[in-house]
Amino acid sequence: MPLPPTEIEFRVRYAETDQMGVVYHTNYLVWCEMGRTDFIRKRGMSYADIERSGTLLAVSDLAARFIGAARYEQMIRVQTTLTSIQSRSIVFDYLISNAETAARLVTARTTLISVDSSGRPKAMPVEVRRLFEPA
Amino acid sequence: MPLPPTEIEFRVRYAETDQMGVVYHTNYLVWCEMGRTDFIRKRGMSYADIERSGTLLAVSDLAARFIGAARYEQMIRVQTTLTSIQSRSIVFDYLISNAETAARLVTARTTLISVDSSGRPKAMPVEVRRLFEPA
Amino acid sequence: MPLPPTEIEFRVRYAETDQMGVVYHTNYLVWCEMGRTDFIRKRGMSYADIERSGTLLAVSDLAARFIGAARYEQMIRVQTTLTSIQSRSIVFDYLISNAETAARLVTARTTLISVDSSGRPKAMPVEVRRLFEPA
Amino acid sequence: MPLPPTEIEFRVRYAETDQMGVVYHTNYLVWCEMGRTDFIRKRGMSYADIERSGTLLAVSDLAARFIGAARYEQMIRVQTTLTSIQSRSIVFDYLISNAETAARLVTARTTLISVDSSGRPKAMPVEVRRLFEPA
Repeated sequence: MPLPPTEIEFRVRYAETDQMGVVYHTNYLVWCEMGRTDFIRKRGMSYADIERSGTLLAVSDLAARFIGAARYEQMIRVQTTLTSIQSRSIVFDYLISNAETAARLVTARTTLISVDSSGRPKAMPVEVRRLFEPA
Repeated sequence: MPLPPTEIEFRVRYAETDQMGVVYHTNYLVWCEMGRTDFIRKRGMSYADIERSGTLLAVSDLAARFIGAARYEQMIRVQTTLTSIQSRSIVFDYLISNAETAARLVTARTTLISVDSSGRPKAMPVEVRRLFEPA
Repeated sequence: MPLPPTEIEFRVRYAETDQMGVVYHTNYLVWCEMGRTDFIRKRGMSYADIERSGTLLAVSDLAARFIGAARYEQMIRVQTTLTSIQSRSIVFDYLISNAETAARLVTARTTLISVDSSGRPKAMPVEVRRLFEPA
Repeated sequence: MPLPPTEIEFRVRYAETDQMGVVYHTNYLVWCEMGRTDFIRKRGMSYADIERSGTLLAVSDLAARFIGAARYEQMIRVQTTLTSIQSRSIVFDYLISNAETAARLVTARTTLISVDSSGRPKAMPVEVRRLFEPA
């Protein structure tokens, strides 16, 4: 049985807008990262602790589709789903929506690879891998 | 009687860190802006609405003292105080601290001036000014 | 005959690093945007002028592969190639590399769609479309 | 005789604008940092090397006055002046202007303190201090 998705909500910052009057596109990808670190925290470990233990999860692939625009002060919801896991990589999917209207704004997928502090790929330690597996 | 300070809390994002391992210094100033737009929202109007009505509050002066460092995933508190108000300008003071330890991280002050959509100074409309005055 | 790729070079900013000691991943996508606006400028029109004339080019799809890491103060090269153009959309490909070693860091592709100032899709005006076509 | 000021020029990025249609105010402070690391580089050492040698220069105080606004695609000039130096601190002044019109946009001052990798204040090593002193 797969792990349930997690959700975070927060308000759009002025600094995140651009002169088009909407959120600058790369900021949605920062929000995806907030979603996945929240996912990890809810599984019982902070990503800060994982890094301190010598395992870094680096983004190796990223794809996003921009469907609608977020605006300053709107409440945003990011839903994060663990899609697959292998010994050295994890795939997350994200749905970013307007928290008040439920309008879909962005869908995205990232692949993370497990690397050591010099950036060399390595298998995820068992205590990290366990975070991403159903009980 | 002055208006009471307001407070927001949130978690440090990975994107906000730099290679020193702490939050990059200009991000604290983004947090000050989050503090003052929250202050305005709690007074009963969103800054987005103020802008739509044709009044922009632009930062004209800024001063900050960096005392301690925030780190990834820490909970941060920003306390925002309205210090003074005149027909065309408002001064806010900020205290940024670690929400768990109460350690002081940054103190800052910004002066905002009221401008129209072409950037020309103008007196704040009465409905905006009223937000910043005790009942 | 396709239009030739264009190139820009610049130095990594401290603000672009994160606590992993390398450039935070979404900043590479900001660099892609610098690449495509430079491409447009070299074709004879500034993107600022295109926006003022009422046509906005909004990112609708984005994909990136992160191969190597850029570090503070390194010189970066972004090569931008126009891959295809249709009445309402344009596809660009990007190759980001270390300008000194030529090491490949990131490859990316973005699809931009032509929208009006309210965000509704529209065909690109002839003077915009002409920028993207060989003489 | 004081060291001469240094200058850098670059173009405003789309990502640096906000919904007011001008550069978001904290980005000018990122530009100040670009100015001072360029100053150091022109003195013969990269700030990256200084950090690797175990001395970090952390911003302890910052003040800025925002006079005019920069817009997307404009060419910007940052003039950086070393104002004073003591055993543990350095003060830089910055003048940010529009490189084409010479219009003044922002003046700023930062105080940097010399710290070790754990953030403890320490005297600047002689090879670092020498960078900031006339021959």
